[in-house]
Amino acid sequence: MIDVLRASTTVGQALEAGAECVIPVETVAEARQRADELRDSDPLLGGERDGELIPGFDLDNSPLRYTAEAVAGRPIVFTTTNGTRALLQCGDASRILIGAFVNLRAVVDETSNAGGDVHLVCAGTHGEVTSEDVLFAGAVAVELIATNACEQNDQSHIASQFYRWTMEQSSIHQALCDSRGGRNLLQLGHAADIARAAELSRHHRVPEYSPATGRIE
Amino acid sequence: MIDVLRASTTVGQALEAGAECVIPVETVAEARQRADELRDSDPLLGGERDGELIPGFDLDNSPLRYTAEAVAGRPIVFTTTNGTRALLQCGDASRILIGAFVNLRAVVDETSNAGGDVHLVCAGTHGEVTSEDVLFAGAVAVELIATNACEQNDQSHIASQFYRWTMEQSSIHQALCDSRGGRNLLQLGHAADIARAAELSRHHRVPEYSPATGRIE
Repeated sequence: MIDVLRASTTVGQALEAGAECVIPVETVAEARQRADELRDSDPLLGGERDGELIPGFDLDNSPLRYTAEAVAGRPIVFTTTNGTRALLQCGDASRILIGAFVNLRAVVDETSNAGGDVHLVCAGTHGEVTSEDVLFAGAVAVELIATNACEQNDQSHIASQFYRWTMEQSSIHQALCDSRGGRNLLQLGHAADIARAAELSRHHRVPEYSPATGRIE
Repeated sequence: MIDVLRASTTVGQALEAGAECVIPVETVAEARQRADELRDSDPLLGGERDGELIPGFDLDNSPLRYTAEAVAGRPIVFTTTNGTRALLQCGDASRILIGAFVNLRAVVDETSNAGGDVHLVCAGTHGEVTSEDVLFAGAVAVELIATNACEQNDQSHIASQFYRWTMEQSSIHQALCDSRGGRNLLQLGHAADIARAAELSRHHRVPEYSPATGRIE
């Protein structure tokens, strides 16, 4: 599942900073209820609506807020507009990994030995395709094609060519700024989050979601 | 509406060759019924299922069959798997134009003065995005961006970059051969249709569908 700006990036950062787990839920009410159930574990509430902090929550959806000081050892109940929804729709997959540029290398290593099909699920925005997610899907596809004798469908091919062209003409950071998600974040004053999301393979782990436990670890 | 391989190309060819009109319908049964209703106008039945001639039909979905000898002056009742369905879903647009590489220049001329939004509707295959249609959408978008101060959404941007990269690395013909629709046609022995579909701006008219009359003219 891919939601580069910002859920995938932020979830990766949360686990990198030592959070016990991230628990994705769809609604704000559900988030509060889960946090209440988990109160003995000292949970945090994180996520966003319309790109901003949810009233009463501990953390917004900025990866920069998920420092070790803030999150180490604690479960994070997390809800975002598009990423959480996309994740919860991946239930049929044998494994559900969460990818962004911050863990590109780790995602490629993990998926290149997957056997079977790799579906690159782009969260998009309100059901529409967005270029920041397709760009990352293309980056993964280009790497998988380079290292494996795998086939790709037309959607993956388009994403790959979009990534190749972008890397020749521009940069990941610039492409993220130009994307729908990036333009939205710039308007909200979150330029630093885009810069963080463009830091290639900063993280070495791949968050994995288990529908059975409801946890990302 | 874009279904480069082959409905958009073939409809353009039919009108270029002097067909009175093309009447798109969804099902084979509907096609036979419409043809029966129109029998005083000496209609032709055209289209395909799984890329091949429909039993009892006059013409398959190859643009090469739509010669002046075959179609001049006659209405063509037409049904294809993906193109017809996509066309019939464009009902809310103020104008519905049918585009393919064979009429790229004419489509750009017609849409660059449209005012309002231009939606590039890719027919795809069985509901999935295919690269031959996105490539043409990208070609139109690149031309519109070059000639107008218009904005594009992320989907249009991805299509544009895909087209730019393809034109630098390859060719329209090669890209069509590599696409899902192209690979399918090559397997069925229709290589000549791909070559025809790659003939840039061969036609000078833009077929237009009227939901009110049910005719493409």
